[in-house]
Amino acid sequence: MNQKIQDRLTAMRAVMKENGVNWYMVPTADFHNSEYVDRYFKVREFLCNFSGSNGTLIIGEKEAGLWTDGRYFIQAEKELAGTGVTLYRMEEEGVPTKEEFLAEKMEEGQTLAFDGRVVDTRYGQKLEAVLKEKKITISCDKDLADQIWAERPGMPCHPAVVLDEAICGKTVREKLADVRAKMKEYDAASFFLSKLEDQMWLLNIRGKDVSCFPVALSYTYITAEECHYFIQKDAVTKELKEHAAKYGITLHDYHDVRAFLENVPMDGKVLCDLGNVSFAFYKIISEKAKIINAANPTELMKAIKNPVELEKMREVFIKDSAALCKFIYWLKDRIGKETITEITAADYLDNLRSQVEGYLDLSFHTISAYRANAAMMHYSATEEGHAVLAPEGMLLVDSGGQYLGGTTDVTRTIVLGPITDEEKEHFTAVAMGMLQLTNAKFLYGCTGRNLDILARQPMWDRNIDYKCGTGHGIGYILNVHEGPQGIRWKYSEGMREAVIEAGMAISNEPGVYVEGSHGIRTENIIIAENGEKNGDGQFMHFETLTWVPIDLDAIDKSIMQPKDIERLNRYHAQVREKILPYMNEKEAKWLIEATREI
Amino acid sequence: MNQKIQDRLTAMRAVMKENGVNWYMVPTADFHNSEYVDRYFKVREFLCNFSGSNGTLIIGEKEAGLWTDGRYFIQAEKELAGTGVTLYRMEEEGVPTKEEFLAEKMEEGQTLAFDGRVVDTRYGQKLEAVLKEKKITISCDKDLADQIWAERPGMPCHPAVVLDEAICGKTVREKLADVRAKMKEYDAASFFLSKLEDQMWLLNIRGKDVSCFPVALSYTYITAEECHYFIQKDAVTKELKEHAAKYGITLHDYHDVRAFLENVPMDGKVLCDLGNVSFAFYKIISEKAKIINAANPTELMKAIKNPVELEKMREVFIKDSAALCKFIYWLKDRIGKETITEITAADYLDNLRSQVEGYLDLSFHTISAYRANAAMMHYSATEEGHAVLAPEGMLLVDSGGQYLGGTTDVTRTIVLGPITDEEKEHFTAVAMGMLQLTNAKFLYGCTGRNLDILARQPMWDRNIDYKCGTGHGIGYILNVHEGPQGIRWKYSEGMREAVIEAGMAISNEPGVYVEGSHGIRTENIIIAENGEKNGDGQFMHFETLTWVPIDLDAIDKSIMQPKDIERLNRYHAQVREKILPYMNEKEAKWLIEATREI
Repeated sequence: MNQKIQDRLTAMRAVMKENGVNWYMVPTADFHNSEYVDRYFKVREFLCNFSGSNGTLIIGEKEAGLWTDGRYFIQAEKELAGTGVTLYRMEEEGVPTKEEFLAEKMEEGQTLAFDGRVVDTRYGQKLEAVLKEKKITISCDKDLADQIWAERPGMPCHPAVVLDEAICGKTVREKLADVRAKMKEYDAASFFLSKLEDQMWLLNIRGKDVSCFPVALSYTYITAEECHYFIQKDAVTKELKEHAAKYGITLHDYHDVRAFLENVPMDGKVLCDLGNVSFAFYKIISEKAKIINAANPTELMKAIKNPVELEKMREVFIKDSAALCKFIYWLKDRIGKETITEITAADYLDNLRSQVEGYLDLSFHTISAYRANAAMMHYSATEEGHAVLAPEGMLLVDSGGQYLGGTTDVTRTIVLGPITDEEKEHFTAVAMGMLQLTNAKFLYGCTGRNLDILARQPMWDRNIDYKCGTGHGIGYILNVHEGPQGIRWKYSEGMREAVIEAGMAISNEPGVYVEGSHGIRTENIIIAENGEKNGDGQFMHFETLTWVPIDLDAIDKSIMQPKDIERLNRYHAQVREKILPYMNEKEAKWLIEATREI
Repeated sequence: MNQKIQDRLTAMRAVMKENGVNWYMVPTADFHNSEYVDRYFKVREFLCNFSGSNGTLIIGEKEAGLWTDGRYFIQAEKELAGTGVTLYRMEEEGVPTKEEFLAEKMEEGQTLAFDGRVVDTRYGQKLEAVLKEKKITISCDKDLADQIWAERPGMPCHPAVVLDEAICGKTVREKLADVRAKMKEYDAASFFLSKLEDQMWLLNIRGKDVSCFPVALSYTYITAEECHYFIQKDAVTKELKEHAAKYGITLHDYHDVRAFLENVPMDGKVLCDLGNVSFAFYKIISEKAKIINAANPTELMKAIKNPVELEKMREVFIKDSAALCKFIYWLKDRIGKETITEITAADYLDNLRSQVEGYLDLSFHTISAYRANAAMMHYSATEEGHAVLAPEGMLLVDSGGQYLGGTTDVTRTIVLGPITDEEKEHFTAVAMGMLQLTNAKFLYGCTGRNLDILARQPMWDRNIDYKCGTGHGIGYILNVHEGPQGIRWKYSEGMREAVIEAGMAISNEPGVYVEGSHGIRTENIIIAENGEKNGDGQFMHFETLTWVPIDLDAIDKSIMQPKDIERLNRYHAQVREKILPYMNEKEAKWLIEATREI
């Protein structure tokens, strides 16, 4: 029984009652629909103990439910134990969606409340539509949890950093011109941008307001002539002021954006990404102007890396890979000789990474998951609950860094000692899938849905699925996950897919997760490139950025086809060539062995 | 110079002028949006000479254009030569769509005309939307071509056939109940069905009004209590009357449907598939009732074959395969010894097929294409233009039959003598792709877009693409092409994809087409089946229906992986087992050799 959480839920229900609220919804978001959020925004975790990066809590008078996706089923089950909160496994057969649940459970005339600043417009509208028939009142102007969270941290605020243009590849002037050209295409007089990473990319700045996610809390409002940038006063530096002056950017206080939107004349149409603009600001804008709802044009521009970014990324990924190689050498060398835990292993790796030139931060908290813990896709070892490593089984390590020059993300599953034949088979299947996707040749026009099966095939051939996508876009000194591209297989009617464009960076991370037994994931980052163009179209392929051995101790060559073996050997030869210069004598000896031809 | 066509276009332009029409559009359709149409409906071919199954002619005062898809580019180029009609290659870079072309070319206030009975509503509405800005008048109440086509054939009319319920698997009562349940889901009081094959399936009848397509021209109007069936008077037999009486179907004359729609009370909503109902009838219904636009519910029901249909198909496909095997034996035996042309070869095969038990018709005109002719995907040999076969190169034969018990479709490319190494490589790649898709394992929820790359991969690996889909659904004693499923890769925003359901039959037909040199296609029909269901979902795989050797004379084993070789050997062992009982002594000897392990 988790008394702390039950007490908080009891307190919440009392506040709900005072406010005439029957159901209260708490998603996982800041005011910018960010994936990573500061502690200030972690209301859902405060109320139900589930700490995963995706989840929505719905509290009723007598029950509460938590919706999360397949990556977190096992973790959520653990963290929700004793809280009285029911886990709803998203997309599993027979599990209602949040809207279906509310439409079913809510009684006619009841009130649903949520903080309208942390719900995006598209979802707010969806709720309105679904609950209209039951005459549900939606109240979204209060953050009720604030009233019971006595020790809530303050809103984060750190000085913003202006990037050296030499590593950006494009000036703010050029980027603003590109955005304004898009606005013109849409016939939009202005563009309200609230997505944090898009603003950082557009203005060539970075911040430190969120751990692992180098952004400054901010909003941007652009017209054909003006660019208004809203950022907390204490985040503004002399360099930022100069930068703003140089590119005609007017600086405002972050907290003045609401008043600005209320008062600025909006004569023409306003471009807004309703999937990313909060319900609260949508209400203000939609009362004044016609809204053009479209993806932020910055999203696709940011996803297609320019030659300077690509060059920097190639360098950074080699150095980052070298750090991981050093870690693997150390781990394999020391295991059984000293006490190493999931946490001390991660710390050792984080420390190696921090010594890499240009290091800023991790790109997410290192996942270090031993044996069965690795079956939890986004398991996080804690001081209270973590495993001690032994010279047997495998350790899954998913990690990455933020550097001046790129954001990395890499997973390796490392053999610490004896493993089972089944583990070897699964590990080999994962490697085969990862390499088959890496070596894909495809026509321009493909989206991730065309390619996903190349990574998944060896698992599907064995009646196994990893319940998540195969790959996500990756930012440049920004969010380790970014759109619009992705490599996934599932279809839903009306879904939008992004065509894979040359210059897009994508993760390639198939896996096998066997609850209670083991988890395996092998992840490289790959870049889409143009190949031959002929009468049949523009052919494309991928370039690899990540150079870390795939553990041969877990490879079962007997289940591989010759071309699988060739691909593995070719990859390892390149790893050796690129990483050897960074290794000391002992590490070099290990690397040569670890990348031997099989 | 094609004087005959130029004269017809001149005559058309005169009629257009008389009628105040600036542009006239002629698609390829009957009144039911059928894929195959009787000669009565072949207005487009009459006017421009292009005989492919898909193409739209647009005639202006000074120019004319023909739009067709990748299957027909080469053929269209030939057939349009000297007609003055420009070929617009659909989906190629920089080629305008028909709507874009009209929006660009038409001047403000001009008139576009077409026969509203042969244009589906969705497309009619699209044209209205695109041309609205230029204030274009759309006139769709006349078939202008009728005025210049002096020797136009009469509308086809043949007695309808009532199928034995033993081969249908479901009675009309059950099917009507299923359809009415769907109507209820849509809250539709009535359902207007004009798609011919859907009516045949629903009412367990067949017709002979179109060559290769066993349908009777008809319409059906269904309410919760009634079922009105419109069919030409001379098509009604005693059996049909009894069948109609048994299942509460009211028979009407085909030509009375317009008056019926105008006069019948429509109190509730009407379910209509606007992609398949003609613009003309849409106008009548939409003035009287609210329309629910959705795919005909019969489409998906028809696509998922029931156990009786599957069992009949398995039998029929073996017999049909045996006929093709006999043909291949004969061809390989006789080539170089007697004169065989593309046409006489096809005739020989058609004759073999006609001797199969339960034979009704071909399922399409046999494609027999030698060497470079095979690069034209839907090439059709004619008395005036066809090749004489020689003991060298390859003959592509794509053929199928309509039987009481199923519709078949199979392609083999047959080696007649020496071929080049490139031809062997291409042939082997096609076989590898076909077999990789056949052996796919996948989770329920996949659509054809997830699987297409499995067939296409060996070609894409070589910077080659076949510019068409990999597979189409196939009917049961009906259209050889049917939806909603398909195996294709291209994405377009808002497209709808059909999840592959157990019981769906699909063609698997990758190819390589090298203009001026050679064309290769290998096509089997496969059925989706459920496999293991576990915590990861419902796994699925395919069962093969087609059993004809893949010509080992064109297989280059050196480019195959062991698993490709295993798949080929496994397939050939099954071919041998299933087909040997149908072979005479000489054929058997050949079959054993043709299916030998490599």
